[in-house]
Amino acid sequence: MNRNEALDRLREARVGRLATADSTGQPHVVPFVYALDGETLYWAVDEKPKRSRDLKRLDNIRENPRVEVLVDRYDEDWTKLWWVRASGTARILEPGPEWERAISVLAEKYRQYAGSPPGGPVVAIDLDRVSGWQASQPN
Amino acid sequence: MNRNEALDRLREARVGRLATADSTGQPHVVPFVYALDGETLYWAVDEKPKRSRDLKRLDNIRENPRVEVLVDRYDEDWTKLWWVRASGTARILEPGPEWERAISVLAEKYRQYAGSPPGGPVVAIDLDRVSGWQASQPN
Repeated sequence: MNRNEALDRLREARVGRLATADSTGQPHVVPFVYALDGETLYWAVDEKPKRSRDLKRLDNIRENPRVEVLVDRYDEDWTKLWWVRASGTARILEPGPEWERAISVLAEKYRQYAGSPPGGPVVAIDLDRVSGWQASQPN
Repeated sequence: MNRNEALDRLREARVGRLATADSTGQPHVVPFVYALDGETLYWAVDEKPKRSRDLKRLDNIRENPRVEVLVDRYDEDWTKLWWVRASGTARILEPGPEWERAISVLAEKYRQYAGSPPGGPVVAIDLDRVSGWQASQPN
């Protein structure tokens, strides 16, 4: 799978998994919704972080901005599996034009945000390596 | 969600995502199939590692055995979302009784292995923290 096809799948997927690691190297992985704008991916914490799980991903990003994002398809027919992975560097956005752009691309992709746009911190992930894999189809 | 319910969901899920990190703190995340036996989770690399993606997860585990596993449900109705996360310590198994046990629990869970059991390295992950979250249901 070439980079453009991998980016297309990343753009279209409805859910991804975001891996971060703290400064001790403990990995952390959460499901997340995001929108891709060019080669920058945006996600927003739904609410002001109150609970430890929200704080943990943001704490990790502050300690170590390297992240990896995965989208994949699971099927009981293992010849239909595929995945796309993208590594990148995360930035927690301050209110401003990029923050507004992020909220806008998120609301465009997810109608669920229409009535209640995300109210928490917004994170940009500048992608670098993007790769994909697809199971071989049987002949 | 209590620990037992979280373990039940982890046991029943058909696919998980495994996060590792290398010694520089670069996170890595891949989809994987696994079987839970008590509080140890087993997965097997399908083939002898030839390709960089297989080697990377194993290299990471050798450098840093701390891992995290995620299973989750995505639905366009965001009141139906849930996830379970489990952190643990990974061990690459040598052929022996535990290796055989792992292959047996994997083959029991996945009929896909029936004709062609996994031929690559087998990894055990001894779980420690297990937690789960479920979206609030609307009233």
